Amino acid sequence: MKALQYRTIGSRPEVVEIPIPEVGPGQVLLKVTAAGVCHSDEFVMSLPEEAYTFGLPLTLGHEGAGIVHELGAGVTQFKVGDSVAVYGPWGCGRCHNCAAGKENYCSNAATEGIAPPGLGAPGAMAEYMLIDDPRHLVPLGALDPVKNVSLTDAGLTPYHAIKKSLPKLGAGTTAVVIGTGGLGHVGIQILRALSGATIIALDVNDEKLALARKVGAHHAILSDADAVATIKELTGGLGANAVFDFVGIQPTVNIAGAAVAAEGDVTIVGIGGGSLPVGFGVIAYDAAVRAPYWGSRSELIEVLDMARRGQIEVEVETFSLADAPTAYERLHAGTISGRAVILPNG
Amino acid sequence: MKALQYRTIGSRPEVVEIPIPEVGPGQVLLKVTAAGVCHSDEFVMSLPEEAYTFGLPLTLGHEGAGIVHELGAGVTQFKVGDSVAVYGPWGCGRCHNCAAGKENYCSNAATEGIAPPGLGAPGAMAEYMLIDDPRHLVPLGALDPVKNVSLTDAGLTPYHAIKKSLPKLGAGTTAVVIGTGGLGHVGIQILRALSGATIIALDVNDEKLALARKVGAHHAILSDADAVATIKELTGGLGANAVFDFVGIQPTVNIAGAAVAAEGDVTIVGIGGGSLPVGFGVIAYDAAVRAPYWGSRSELIEVLDMARRGQIEVEVETFSLADAPTAYERLHAGTISGRAVILPNG
Amino acid sequence: MKALQYRTIGSRPEVVEIPIPEVGPGQVLLKVTAAGVCHSDEFVMSLPEEAYTFGLPLTLGHEGAGIVHELGAGVTQFKVGDSVAVYGPWGCGRCHNCAAGKENYCSNAATEGIAPPGLGAPGAMAEYMLIDDPRHLVPLGALDPVKNVSLTDAGLTPYHAIKKSLPKLGAGTTAVVIGTGGLGHVGIQILRALSGATIIALDVNDEKLALARKVGAHHAILSDADAVATIKELTGGLGANAVFDFVGIQPTVNIAGAAVAAEGDVTIVGIGGGSLPVGFGVIAYDAAVRAPYWGSRSELIEVLDMARRGQIEVEVETFSLADAPTAYERLHAGTISGRAVILPNG
Amino acid sequence: MKALQYRTIGSRPEVVEIPIPEVGPGQVLLKVTAAGVCHSDEFVMSLPEEAYTFGLPLTLGHEGAGIVHELGAGVTQFKVGDSVAVYGPWGCGRCHNCAAGKENYCSNAATEGIAPPGLGAPGAMAEYMLIDDPRHLVPLGALDPVKNVSLTDAGLTPYHAIKKSLPKLGAGTTAVVIGTGGLGHVGIQILRALSGATIIALDVNDEKLALARKVGAHHAILSDADAVATIKELTGGLGANAVFDFVGIQPTVNIAGAAVAAEGDVTIVGIGGGSLPVGFGVIAYDAAVRAPYWGSRSELIEVLDMARRGQIEVEVETFSLADAPTAYERLHAGTISGRAVILPNG
Repeated sequence: MKALQYRTIGSRPEVVEIPIPEVGPGQVLLKVTAAGVCHSDEFVMSLPEEAYTFGLPLTLGHEGAGIVHELGAGVTQFKVGDSVAVYGPWGCGRCHNCAAGKENYCSNAATEGIAPPGLGAPGAMAEYMLIDDPRHLVPLGALDPVKNVSLTDAGLTPYHAIKKSLPKLGAGTTAVVIGTGGLGHVGIQILRALSGATIIALDVNDEKLALARKVGAHHAILSDADAVATIKELTGGLGANAVFDFVGIQPTVNIAGAAVAAEGDVTIVGIGGGSLPVGFGVIAYDAAVRAPYWGSRSELIEVLDMARRGQIEVEVETFSLADAPTAYERLHAGTISGRAVILPNG
Repeated sequence: MKALQYRTIGSRPEVVEIPIPEVGPGQVLLKVTAAGVCHSDEFVMSLPEEAYTFGLPLTLGHEGAGIVHELGAGVTQFKVGDSVAVYGPWGCGRCHNCAAGKENYCSNAATEGIAPPGLGAPGAMAEYMLIDDPRHLVPLGALDPVKNVSLTDAGLTPYHAIKKSLPKLGAGTTAVVIGTGGLGHVGIQILRALSGATIIALDVNDEKLALARKVGAHHAILSDADAVATIKELTGGLGANAVFDFVGIQPTVNIAGAAVAAEGDVTIVGIGGGSLPVGFGVIAYDAAVRAPYWGSRSELIEVLDMARRGQIEVEVETFSLADAPTAYERLHAGTISGRAVILPNG
Repeated sequence: MKALQYRTIGSRPEVVEIPIPEVGPGQVLLKVTAAGVCHSDEFVMSLPEEAYTFGLPLTLGHEGAGIVHELGAGVTQFKVGDSVAVYGPWGCGRCHNCAAGKENYCSNAATEGIAPPGLGAPGAMAEYMLIDDPRHLVPLGALDPVKNVSLTDAGLTPYHAIKKSLPKLGAGTTAVVIGTGGLGHVGIQILRALSGATIIALDVNDEKLALARKVGAHHAILSDADAVATIKELTGGLGANAVFDFVGIQPTVNIAGAAVAAEGDVTIVGIGGGSLPVGFGVIAYDAAVRAPYWGSRSELIEVLDMARRGQIEVEVETFSLADAPTAYERLHAGTISGRAVILPNG
Repeated sequence: MKALQYRTIGSRPEVVEIPIPEVGPGQVLLKVTAAGVCHSDEFVMSLPEEAYTFGLPLTLGHEGAGIVHELGAGVTQFKVGDSVAVYGPWGCGRCHNCAAGKENYCSNAATEGIAPPGLGAPGAMAEYMLIDDPRHLVPLGALDPVKNVSLTDAGLTPYHAIKKSLPKLGAGTTAVVIGTGGLGHVGIQILRALSGATIIALDVNDEKLALARKVGAHHAILSDADAVATIKELTGGLGANAVFDFVGIQPTVNIAGAAVAAEGDVTIVGIGGGSLPVGFGVIAYDAAVRAPYWGSRSELIEVLDMARRGQIEVEVETFSLADAPTAYERLHAGTISGRAVILPNG
């Protein structure tokens, strides 16, 4: 079968021919319907050899969807022909966090070398994809896999970040979203659907602010030197009850820290390398700052429910597997509108 | 001044002339701008002598708003001319619940004989109204007191009921509202603004269902023998994650109990005398059934914030104080559209 | 192998010889180390034919522990020789509740005919026991299986009931435990270890009250006509912040309903057939009444952690498989001290 | 009357003679029974002129207790002779946070110049103390004011910090307390009484570690270079579910950040000037870092309830008002055992 692999540190990913995986007992083979292209793939491929820990060759694609093609012995939860999404942050399945359905915070993944597909295990950018356990599949039903595959990360990650702050986003509150791209423009829709907050979106140019308004932001402002003052003004001087930073570079985390209200939340999602100091007198009283990772399987089910109800929608641009390297180039150049999706069997 | 008083058990309320109250230290005198007419007033006036505990004569009106007219000695939080709403469920101010801002659950109110205005203390259906402590006032600012006075009960009560269930009303969930009248039609708006739930409204005729749809219900169905089956069908067989019963008669609490999902909430708000039995095998696993009362002062501030942001709106019909007895008659006859509001100085 | 089976409606369970189960892919065979005897087994065997839905013959035992004896193809999470406890409330593994780790509230178990071991599937009262999926096993490590097997139900069920009320059981609060037997005496220990509540235990005789005091109750009183008055007196008139009824007959749920404070919890765990009516004016304001079922897998891990730290301990009396029928007779007669445990390979 | 005042920047506090305050309407005059000496007083008196914002002369003492001596007109909640504690973090009483009982996070205190007694308003280190509103008093009843006055800060502050983390401190969890002095040794007792966590205490010498063990720490270790490794070892490699840093200097916040588990809490209480950077990859996934301030009035009631039940106890050493300057000197020298308490009428 054809697959997109990262094969040499520093080089671009290549389409190669590899064998279709064999299905062992308890496993599932998918015929891939869609695979999402993500900034974190780029981040991984930018790492120098000493920092790269994902194995080579690496079949890319941690956002995946497919049709169940073959069931390993003993698998009964799904049947051939089912349309499914892949839950990506695989864990050991038996630690306390995995038992609670939070494989993204598996206590054993690091020590046991368990890695998500596309970030260690072979990913979704191939004609077929092997799933180690049926618990890593979520039924898509009638949902379009191409339009929704990105929800497995670009939907799940902001959802997980936002869900913990919902108790602080009731009546009379304000949420700030920094970065209105892949994750941020879904985040705005999630906030609009699930919270009572006034939403203030920040980004670097008018085109992105227009998208933010289109998907539901009540205010959209430039993330410049005046941003904090504007947020304070819009909140009667109190600041925002939650700030979600989907960029995560030092200037944006600084804005986040200055804009948060007492007892508010700052959630740093973007992997831009910024960090925000917390201490007495350094940030608003009792503001909680954290950096979560991906999301849980039940949260993925919830995100897909939102898509079914029309509460969230991802803008996608599709590419064949042969054109996948181009998709990464355009992502790097910033010319992808919404999210790029690869169709390995398209 | 003129006031509407309930003076004799079993008779209708009368407009009478009484002295303007004198303002003691720490008290505030309001010139009343609006006073809401509520079903519970009717309930109180329907009680036989042995069950009536509110004192006679009783100046009616537990939903009140006014302009600060005179400040007692030592009052500094407000100034003459401020437009305010009255927080109704007065408490002792020093027990644990009052300290936590929940005077509606004051531990000492019953034993110390502390009663809300209009339900023991003199109420808002008079030209002037005495407030015992400035903490029972909430600034209205530019909000129209006539349109919003009912939020002090008809907004606060459903808000308090719904707020506790919000953690169960995220993505992919369903809320049922039984009764789409005074409280229910505000409840639907609150659910629409603050939760991700699909809202199913139940009432007894098409006119009321049309109002439910207008204010945001996704589905509106008759509360008849098929209602539970329809709710189950709309929820894939699971039932509703929260049911709010704003009627509270036996047939509606029965629907509520049959419609709730495992781990869901049934909240009985209506004082219709119904009760729902809870036990193992009698109701869905871990469904929680409760009957809350009114709301807290900080919740009233939140409700008014929602009004400011245009998230909730009460339909009102206004009456002069002289016509207040007529308003109660029309309420009893069921011909009030939305909420009746008395303008004692109008 | 030898197994204890319920074979004919109305008859007593019998020790029979049946084949050792064969292990399919994805399954695990345990050599049973211990199996707990539970009142609910008795309840099941008391049902008339038309109400009995557990299949015949039924190998009993829904509290189980064992040594991993054989791994089905594809099972990698455990290895032969591991000491494990069995998580009992099996679910479909793919619905939203299962994904969230709450198989006890599986949305599909009823419609798909999935039943717990000992309550439909073959249970632990046999020399060997087949587990359908490794996710239903929890490592015991060095914990004694005989002393701790009962925690899989008699520990997990009160733990799950109590955990949801912990936010209401902080400083200055009171918890009431009705019934200090199998579940109740563990419940008292859980409350003592995890909450700040003063614990009041209720039971029908002094011997049981002595046990309650021994395991940590601050007060232990007879569950008679004066019980509610005593609880009110001990709580300054306010009532208890949480009441756990491990008996669940009508007199005990009545006590629970009368003893709860405003905003408190009443949790009916016992399957005694009682039910508590909830409505406005019928029970304290906003008291929540519910009837949960068993517990989640991550909660079982937590219960076992408590045992490891010495926070809970179950009194057990052991029986051979041949004597298991006697154990049920003594349970029925009320002469078991603590919990009866069968040693099928002992 | 005699009062201890800070009168000149950089000088030591002095006992001076000033007039007894006059009681206005709505106010209360206390005859002081006890006033606690706190490190933050020292911090305030160490500030250079340009950073000092508390006014001069400043009557010290933000931990106060007294007997109601005189009631201003209109005050009805208390009567002369009542023994009360003073709730310190005064707010405006009408903003959303104050309405919710959280005056410590008052939205208007800074802009309206409202300051706590002893930190702007005249404090408790005087024979008499004026309280602006009866809501700032909490009944002590039979509790000894001398032994418990410190709970108004040294109890309330750790209580507030810990309370928010209690949901993360159930079965199988671990809490770390850094600094076992005034606040820390109360914090350990609070954790022991209200949580299921294993408690690891850190401090700089064996004497302090002995105190930590005495008040309930399960482990007490030196806060040196090995501390993080020891915490990891004691938690099976996972880290602590909550870390409370009552010191707050850079080395301790660094330990806190390195010791916290995924999804854990780091709470910086000490005003030592340290700050902890939070970002993706910089700290455990989804660990929340925050710096709260003091506590709410209802929390103070809860803390006093804990003292009544014997769950917390403060070690105190008493001084006359004349010796108060000496108490500050000994505090500075680190030779106070537990908490110093001034008896202005003793």
